[in-house]
Amino acid sequence: MTDVIPEGAVSTAPYRYALAVEYAGGLYHGWQKQEHDSVRCIQSEVEKALAKVANHPVNVICAGRTDAGVSASCQIIHFDTHAVRDQRAWIMGTNTYLPDDIAILWATPVTQDFHARFSAKARRYRYIIYSSPVKPGLLHKGVTWTWKTLDVELMRQASKFLIGEHDFTSYRAVGCQAKSPVRTVQDIVLHQVNNLIVIDIKANAFLHHMVRNIAGVLMKIGAQEAPVSWAKEVLDAKDRRQGGVTAPPFGLYFVDVDYDEAHELPRMPLGPYFLGLQD
Amino acid sequence: MTDVIPEGAVSTAPYRYALAVEYAGGLYHGWQKQEHDSVRCIQSEVEKALAKVANHPVNVICAGRTDAGVSASCQIIHFDTHAVRDQRAWIMGTNTYLPDDIAILWATPVTQDFHARFSAKARRYRYIIYSSPVKPGLLHKGVTWTWKTLDVELMRQASKFLIGEHDFTSYRAVGCQAKSPVRTVQDIVLHQVNNLIVIDIKANAFLHHMVRNIAGVLMKIGAQEAPVSWAKEVLDAKDRRQGGVTAPPFGLYFVDVDYDEAHELPRMPLGPYFLGLQD
Repeated sequence: MTDVIPEGAVSTAPYRYALAVEYAGGLYHGWQKQEHDSVRCIQSEVEKALAKVANHPVNVICAGRTDAGVSASCQIIHFDTHAVRDQRAWIMGTNTYLPDDIAILWATPVTQDFHARFSAKARRYRYIIYSSPVKPGLLHKGVTWTWKTLDVELMRQASKFLIGEHDFTSYRAVGCQAKSPVRTVQDIVLHQVNNLIVIDIKANAFLHHMVRNIAGVLMKIGAQEAPVSWAKEVLDAKDRRQGGVTAPPFGLYFVDVDYDEAHELPRMPLGPYFLGLQD
Repeated sequence: MTDVIPEGAVSTAPYRYALAVEYAGGLYHGWQKQEHDSVRCIQSEVEKALAKVANHPVNVICAGRTDAGVSASCQIIHFDTHAVRDQRAWIMGTNTYLPDDIAILWATPVTQDFHARFSAKARRYRYIIYSSPVKPGLLHKGVTWTWKTLDVELMRQASKFLIGEHDFTSYRAVGCQAKSPVRTVQDIVLHQVNNLIVIDIKANAFLHHMVRNIAGVLMKIGAQEAPVSWAKEVLDAKDRRQGGVTAPPFGLYFVDVDYDEAHELPRMPLGPYFLGLQD
């Protein structure tokens, strides 16, 4: 087990790879592997599959850890290896060892100064709300259902208060371990097509539950149970108890990470891929 | 059990309801209930749930039986009942008794001359292909994956040969029990957005495996493994052995049924609902 590289340690393995991972998180207990292997985690599945291709144990670092039930259309990871394999082996080979709901989208060699988490300049999430009087029979683990009618224009107005650098104490989980509650939200865009409302949010980084807490506030405003100004009142309060309910994890997708162009990572259409058909 | 109405028998129950059902078929052995209850079927789940609301056994008739693994964004069914319940009870009440991957979308009273199957003037399916070098991690039970690049324009040209009234012997399952192999395809439209290709097909009725066999032929033509004219050659051969492989069930969705407007059934946006976002 000497090949295991503890997180943060300097790697002695000569090759570093970056990979994009897509996963349906509905049946997993989140990204991060647990001390005990009794619950299924994305990280463990990816590490086990990569280890079979590498023929040695593999530790992966991700750009952003996702909670139980949260999906990703493009999670970025990196790992170090002694193994000499071509990109096809890291992609296709690993995919054959992964469960059906996890897939490696691309793999590319990177320099040792690339770090999936620390090199990330911005992350982007999409939160998909299914607004309908009745529950969805399709994609029930991939959207957040509300029976309420939401006024997207009100949600859009409210979202403007959150753009920019702010203290997001009111929007982070009580147990959030980040040192600073200050984050810079670069943009929030709301899309609506038929019964779907998509909150698309980009920030330098996110606090624990930040997107789901923002979604909770915006959904309440959209349902006209609180005024547009409430999003700002919650922000200004700097008190989680003033916030709304944390929206469910099932509608949340980690969709993109920005890195310096010098790393030359592949770019793909923004996911999840099933959003996008023009009728 | 005197309330059970055998299929085809004249109902003595005074009320007939039409309902729209959405379901993710990935985990079911198809629509139709089996003699033995050892496999999960959509029909059994719907009948069990409706029976709890009606407080008597319920038999439902559907517009089009779907195979194992096939989904529906709008399957239409009808059933007869003695029970006096409002529409809310038939929808919301039934939904509380259904599994997460089956939902009643609407329910409406209809006259005794409405029959979900025999009154249907046309059915419509959408077949969703995910064309990508790597497998999908999301929606893996809801799309058909091919690693091949498909030329949609070639598929579109080939589809034209199938429009109109034809003998579809080459496109039906060997075991298909329909008396006549003649069907009228009213339209086939191909959509492409990013990695998704959607074959949208409407016909007066469909033979067993007809959409999946058409999808199999069009995918082979799109992959340039057969010329555009092959779709017509297969049709003209009137021989199933001349056809292509039957495409997998996972990308297939039953999306719409046409009835006479006199029945006044509700209309909904064409599904599946997750197709449609303009980026």
